Amino acid sequence: MTERIWSAALVVIGDEILSGRTHDRNIAQVASWLQVQGIRLMEVRVVPDVQDRIAEAVNALRTTHDYLFTTGGIGPTHDDITVDAVAMAIGVPVIEHPEARRILEEFYASRGGLNEARLRMARIPQGADLIPNKMSGAPGIRIGNVFMMAGVPAIAAQMLAALTGTLEGGAPLLSETVGGWIQESQVADILREVEQAHPKCQIGSYPFFREGRTGANFVIRSTDAEELRSCLDTLCEALGEAGQDFTPGGI
Amino acid sequence: MTERIWSAALVVIGDEILSGRTHDRNIAQVASWLQVQGIRLMEVRVVPDVQDRIAEAVNALRTTHDYLFTTGGIGPTHDDITVDAVAMAIGVPVIEHPEARRILEEFYASRGGLNEARLRMARIPQGADLIPNKMSGAPGIRIGNVFMMAGVPAIAAQMLAALTGTLEGGAPLLSETVGGWIQESQVADILREVEQAHPKCQIGSYPFFREGRTGANFVIRSTDAEELRSCLDTLCEALGEAGQDFTPGGI
Repeated sequence: MTERIWSAALVVIGDEILSGRTHDRNIAQVASWLQVQGIRLMEVRVVPDVQDRIAEAVNALRTTHDYLFTTGGIGPTHDDITVDAVAMAIGVPVIEHPEARRILEEFYASRGGLNEARLRMARIPQGADLIPNKMSGAPGIRIGNVFMMAGVPAIAAQMLAALTGTLEGGAPLLSETVGGWIQESQVADILREVEQAHPKCQIGSYPFFREGRTGANFVIRSTDAEELRSCLDTLCEALGEAGQDFTPGGI
Repeated sequence: MTERIWSAALVVIGDEILSGRTHDRNIAQVASWLQVQGIRLMEVRVVPDVQDRIAEAVNALRTTHDYLFTTGGIGPTHDDITVDAVAMAIGVPVIEHPEARRILEEFYASRGGLNEARLRMARIPQGADLIPNKMSGAPGIRIGNVFMMAGVPAIAAQMLAALTGTLEGGAPLLSETVGGWIQESQVADILREVEQAHPKCQIGSYPFFREGRTGANFVIRSTDAEELRSCLDTLCEALGEAGQDFTPGGI
């Protein structure tokens, strides 16, 4: 029996990432969260603040994955156009959500009150639901399998927390790491052979350069805990036999 | 006369990014470098270590942009398949490059010599050229408008340095930032109006959450230095009139 794999994609919206000004932190955050839900992040696209480009990426990815997440572009300013782009992609109008308006009224009551810009954050594609956000009032938005999250990582984290445990997923992908000041080019055969002997596991080799020296971490991934353990044992044994000095857990 | 805009896309290859294990640093690095070359990064895709998926992304983006960069997957291990994927995408065979072999022979002469795994790094799509890499021997690879770079950020940096000034670009995109502990929802009208009054400039609004408070930076971008200055002056004046406390350069 083949295991059902639940897949997700992420669209990161923002000129600030594409200009190099801001280092994205949402890819790793969403990826790690998805792992725990038993859902695999299969593709990420970073696109500019251009409605057609966002809509194109959303449509390409929402139909080919179980879930699609977006980060960025749901704030109050003129460059926040994710809601419009997703509505366009899905083919529904943008409307004001009464509950979102109520949440914003309450949040801004002691902060100068609602204005036109703040009210923009009550706009949703028709048929969408809200994702709570305790930090800044303005909710995230879910329509079908599309989840629109804030671009500010701390706020996106709140929205992910609100979704935890609510999405159907499969067996979480487990992983084990070994690493050391090892030249990956000296152990490439070992990695390939150990992976071939454990068809339920994948081994990734991640070289690095630190403190003026090169090393590598080898990450074994599997949904099967027993196979993972067996693969780890085999790899450690083979590395030891080859005279390599390694550290369980990686370095 | 409309200014010619030179565009680039980036394909980040690696399960380690999609698993959340590794925080990508190449997007910001390549983006910042491209800005200086007068080339705009228009899209990024992060794809898994799967040959078909890499080839698909490469073909979608190399035909729609002036330049396509890839990072990751050009090392010596079994999961390094970028060269094969790009060759498949372009429709050429993979061959061994004599000069790449010579470079690797020299580099590994004092490091245990060449082996089969290390020789993998001399493989290129037929017709490709090498991009020098002083740090670790193994070169980057250029074929047509496709540039294959290392995944390790310090090595990718060496390859970018080798390419500096060699690619045709347009006028660099200039930027100015002002920011403060400002609620972007209080100044959304100002941002929109100032942008509308300066058609050669775009204004991005980037909220943040730090030290328990929210603030925002406003980034004005333009290829025209004079327009940029004028837009910056107008924005500062308008923020000042609205009683907002802001810091030139952003916070």
